[in-house]
Amino acid sequence: MIKVGVVGATGYTGIELLRLLSKHDAVELVVATSNAEKGKAVRDVFPSLRMHVDLEFVGHDSELLKSCDFIFFATPHATAMYHVPKLLEQGCKIIDLSADFRISNPTLWEQWYQVSHACPELLNQAVYGLPELNRQKIKDANLIANPGCYPTAITLALLPAVEKGLINMGDIIADAKSGVSGAGRKAALATQFSEVSESFKAYSVSGHRHLPEIMQTLNNVQTESEANLTFVPHLVPMNRGIFATLYVKPIENAEGLHEHYAAYYAQEKFVDVMPQGSHPNTASVRATNSCRIALHPGKNQSQPTVILSVIDNLVKGAAGQAIQNMNIMLGLDESLGLAMPGLIP
Amino acid sequence: MIKVGVVGATGYTGIELLRLLSKHDAVELVVATSNAEKGKAVRDVFPSLRMHVDLEFVGHDSELLKSCDFIFFATPHATAMYHVPKLLEQGCKIIDLSADFRISNPTLWEQWYQVSHACPELLNQAVYGLPELNRQKIKDANLIANPGCYPTAITLALLPAVEKGLINMGDIIADAKSGVSGAGRKAALATQFSEVSESFKAYSVSGHRHLPEIMQTLNNVQTESEANLTFVPHLVPMNRGIFATLYVKPIENAEGLHEHYAAYYAQEKFVDVMPQGSHPNTASVRATNSCRIALHPGKNQSQPTVILSVIDNLVKGAAGQAIQNMNIMLGLDESLGLAMPGLIP
Amino acid sequence: MIKVGVVGATGYTGIELLRLLSKHDAVELVVATSNAEKGKAVRDVFPSLRMHVDLEFVGHDSELLKSCDFIFFATPHATAMYHVPKLLEQGCKIIDLSADFRISNPTLWEQWYQVSHACPELLNQAVYGLPELNRQKIKDANLIANPGCYPTAITLALLPAVEKGLINMGDIIADAKSGVSGAGRKAALATQFSEVSESFKAYSVSGHRHLPEIMQTLNNVQTESEANLTFVPHLVPMNRGIFATLYVKPIENAEGLHEHYAAYYAQEKFVDVMPQGSHPNTASVRATNSCRIALHPGKNQSQPTVILSVIDNLVKGAAGQAIQNMNIMLGLDESLGLAMPGLIP
Amino acid sequence: MIKVGVVGATGYTGIELLRLLSKHDAVELVVATSNAEKGKAVRDVFPSLRMHVDLEFVGHDSELLKSCDFIFFATPHATAMYHVPKLLEQGCKIIDLSADFRISNPTLWEQWYQVSHACPELLNQAVYGLPELNRQKIKDANLIANPGCYPTAITLALLPAVEKGLINMGDIIADAKSGVSGAGRKAALATQFSEVSESFKAYSVSGHRHLPEIMQTLNNVQTESEANLTFVPHLVPMNRGIFATLYVKPIENAEGLHEHYAAYYAQEKFVDVMPQGSHPNTASVRATNSCRIALHPGKNQSQPTVILSVIDNLVKGAAGQAIQNMNIMLGLDESLGLAMPGLIP
Repeated sequence: MIKVGVVGATGYTGIELLRLLSKHDAVELVVATSNAEKGKAVRDVFPSLRMHVDLEFVGHDSELLKSCDFIFFATPHATAMYHVPKLLEQGCKIIDLSADFRISNPTLWEQWYQVSHACPELLNQAVYGLPELNRQKIKDANLIANPGCYPTAITLALLPAVEKGLINMGDIIADAKSGVSGAGRKAALATQFSEVSESFKAYSVSGHRHLPEIMQTLNNVQTESEANLTFVPHLVPMNRGIFATLYVKPIENAEGLHEHYAAYYAQEKFVDVMPQGSHPNTASVRATNSCRIALHPGKNQSQPTVILSVIDNLVKGAAGQAIQNMNIMLGLDESLGLAMPGLIP
Repeated sequence: MIKVGVVGATGYTGIELLRLLSKHDAVELVVATSNAEKGKAVRDVFPSLRMHVDLEFVGHDSELLKSCDFIFFATPHATAMYHVPKLLEQGCKIIDLSADFRISNPTLWEQWYQVSHACPELLNQAVYGLPELNRQKIKDANLIANPGCYPTAITLALLPAVEKGLINMGDIIADAKSGVSGAGRKAALATQFSEVSESFKAYSVSGHRHLPEIMQTLNNVQTESEANLTFVPHLVPMNRGIFATLYVKPIENAEGLHEHYAAYYAQEKFVDVMPQGSHPNTASVRATNSCRIALHPGKNQSQPTVILSVIDNLVKGAAGQAIQNMNIMLGLDESLGLAMPGLIP
Repeated sequence: MIKVGVVGATGYTGIELLRLLSKHDAVELVVATSNAEKGKAVRDVFPSLRMHVDLEFVGHDSELLKSCDFIFFATPHATAMYHVPKLLEQGCKIIDLSADFRISNPTLWEQWYQVSHACPELLNQAVYGLPELNRQKIKDANLIANPGCYPTAITLALLPAVEKGLINMGDIIADAKSGVSGAGRKAALATQFSEVSESFKAYSVSGHRHLPEIMQTLNNVQTESEANLTFVPHLVPMNRGIFATLYVKPIENAEGLHEHYAAYYAQEKFVDVMPQGSHPNTASVRATNSCRIALHPGKNQSQPTVILSVIDNLVKGAAGQAIQNMNIMLGLDESLGLAMPGLIP
Repeated sequence: MIKVGVVGATGYTGIELLRLLSKHDAVELVVATSNAEKGKAVRDVFPSLRMHVDLEFVGHDSELLKSCDFIFFATPHATAMYHVPKLLEQGCKIIDLSADFRISNPTLWEQWYQVSHACPELLNQAVYGLPELNRQKIKDANLIANPGCYPTAITLALLPAVEKGLINMGDIIADAKSGVSGAGRKAALATQFSEVSESFKAYSVSGHRHLPEIMQTLNNVQTESEANLTFVPHLVPMNRGIFATLYVKPIENAEGLHEHYAAYYAQEKFVDVMPQGSHPNTASVRATNSCRIALHPGKNQSQPTVILSVIDNLVKGAAGQAIQNMNIMLGLDESLGLAMPGLIP
């Protein structure tokens, strides 16, 4: 059995990793860390894991981590980067679900995250863990930068068009909406129930940290012209789910786009291109590792094509994709431990 | 006291009219109709109105309506048009909250609503009841076509720029989100709690009935070029509220737009242009007749300006705006009966 | 105009006071305090109050409070008691919405609130501000202890029966459910959206601070035997509302109970005894100062009568009742500023 | 592979069966019926099942059902009873998730369900499928009456005490709360999002169909005296979950009750007796087949012990328990296909 550990196991991403890894047939969950809950039994902090996880939380610096074959970091940004170099040296493989290794340009990273990077030398070694883009590189990687939730939903929705140069790179709008768990599990006034429920808002319109991550990927897969993406995130009063509404300008044949997408993702187990004109909802991917995409061509030449993309932010947008990456690195079936249909309702 | 009646008083718009009119100092609510609940006491159907409304529901064709000075139609589309001509003749003033008189071109109306219009001759007589646009015409009108909820939020957000030709009319995107009460109060599977809660989706991407209504207004206030608007509505798991995210391309000076908006609406009691860069949420207008608007200029020349606009769909998007129109027609303070701040939370 | 101030105006109870007082015809809102937001404009902290409240937050110890005729404390417990004595001396009338003056026995208070009381000598001077019980005393009071939200819903549901000795005092169960705003407006993990939404739980089963408050009132109005009340509070994933399900054992005639309740509250503007067998919901009292009560006698002698009671925790359970008390103290119509029907939906 | 079919596969219970059975290692899902969606692909009606279920809906009377080893009825009451006799004859084993076979007394059943029973002769043959009570009988059964959701949560919470005569049978209160999916998947006004969201209510206080089912079980396991249970169901604005708050009067030793419960359920995989004084929430069992129970003894002799019990109404309260029953009938590990921890959030 592969031994795995989760660092920062008390956030929503961390709990989701524990939930999925505790039932993954190829791995044994041996360490869960939390500096705040150190010494407590996992089952006492998370009753949902009673009878499923029989561990005590240890600190992030626990020696037990060394015994792991795989370590998942589900920590806030600017945490993993202090631990990863040493753990890599000790032979662990790392999948970092935070932002620490997602941006390959350290200057850009520091600009958005307002802290010096602790190991910029690893940025180029880290593989951006979007399997549908980087499957081959992931196989051989030791360090995975697991994509952000918005970037996963948006990038999967744009990738087939961008790679082939089928849309105008200078005019892309991503109007994205996220459930509240995307804000993390911490005491904050802005995400109190009564601040969020029965309300809807945009936030960070002037710039969100996921923007440079998306731009980097889009610019990496095309050479035409710098991508010009307008990205506006919104907060939805629901727990899970990301919904991205993309407005793109096809260069020629808007009608052919759907077919291209369907072909592009035909072999993917976790990307479902629905019939043209479909209206996916986030519920259809709840608790799954799937991304559903649907295209709506404009009614005339001058109108954009609308692309809809939905994921579960905690699964395909975080813990599930991380396990998908681990499965690839281990040469396993990519869907091991990730095969459930959506939870309705 | 002005005598008022509400036809179709059992939908969410109808209940909201009863709630607001029952406390309006200048009017007496004398008739509430419902074909389905005919004969029942209003208080038995809506316990929230116990001690406030002491009426029995009568049918839509009740003779009592003739005694009203003002009649509000809160019926589904293609209902008011069968009753309005006769009531107008009898000297009643009509405010129709349905779509029957919103589109001045009967062919266009029939194309979207799939039924022959019963009184196309009244379409040009009807005044589109957006006070911020048509205040003078409203004063003298006998028949008001009260705007739809999406059109109110979107039009108020575009009006100052469109009237002055400050944005490119050929490239406007309106990504709009609505609470579930916008779908009306009726037994429908798609709006069952467990179909909607904890989910988010777009709908009617290929075309929504509010699109021609918005287009008509935009094209009426400018002559440059036919507006090209992409409108995508979404359903938010909350009761009330519309949030519109507009992406527009300023022709020259994106930075000057905010100031123009602030000046344009400076005298309006129900349009609040917030400081540039603000993030209004729908909760801030809950149970109010206000529209809050905020502008976010793009970070570079080629990026769109993002305009955010929020209303309560049942108040400024329906019942409140109808009463605002009535106040104007009666020469009263426009805010009479509509002055409460937002309900938080 | 009566000058009023609100101390602690940034909690949900405080915001609700600002909302209601800003439109109250007999008063002028002149001070709003917040130690945390001191110096900021109210409208910048609460956009819902833009165009309605034109004040800057000052500190709790601001000299401006002296100029107020009425001061509402909407602070956490163990705050008002440090300020009230001096303000009373200066001739202000005080309505404290916190728990500081609710329990007349200081030892009992200190046991539940774990702090020494700063002015135990005022405890007997304070009048428990439940108008339906203490209207006469409230008229002449200088210091009102405004009831808690659970106690309001539960006490109003028991009062008519307890006063007349119609139920067994030794066996009363209050299974109560509250919306999340009852937990206050503060950054706390337990009331984060994703901790609360789509979940339901009991809390404080071993003892909640509202229990001694309810017991005190019940024991004050009857002499038979010490009340034995089991009170279990639950958290509902909604913003507003308290629902109390009471199980009581009528001593004789369970069927007569409803009639007694209807008569008891016949003159009350804010207590609505619904027809026997009704099912009130919290939505019917949303944003109102009303309490709706319905009785369901047991199907046999040995079964309890079920009494259902609903209020809006922020209005009748806090800010609205406080204003009702102020209206009484001022000799005004009790419903001034509080007359709106429930907001549906 | 065992061949299984689901009759009535478009309700929430039906979808949940499809979701769980499609990933169950020992069975092959070969038939899904729906009279309303007959002829449509399952994946078109439920996009969440795309890539997971490759069937077309057939009618309830499809000949394909005969080929099934196991048939699950997830139909409304008074449907299964018309199909079951013939299918039993053909050798199928039946698990009926509706109420048709839950009450062994046909007169009582007919009184509550207001229709003549079509096969009263099968009522005694049917085994009440609560594994923790009837595991041995289930093993050999051909026809299982799968318990209702409320009865599952309430019965599991009472069983250990009732069987041993540890509580007063004449005075039990079950204040129960259910998520909205319990009302089924159908167009109904009362369960529209905007009727339910942000509201809380009791319903059917005068009598709910699950009452006789609970009473039957309680009276079957004890002989002392007829159980006198007051059962009040409430509707919670959430999708999934049942929360039962039980008030019982221990005959002697309230403190010993917890230990007895812990021992009673020690070997059960799906009943989790938490430490005394715990506060389980419904989220902790979301999407699981578990029931969590916690006891709170009264603070004095005359106070009831409070027992809290939570389940997911669609899993342990319906589809999961049905599969648990099937596993038992097949001699498989009871938890096959049912082992996931709770989905948080």
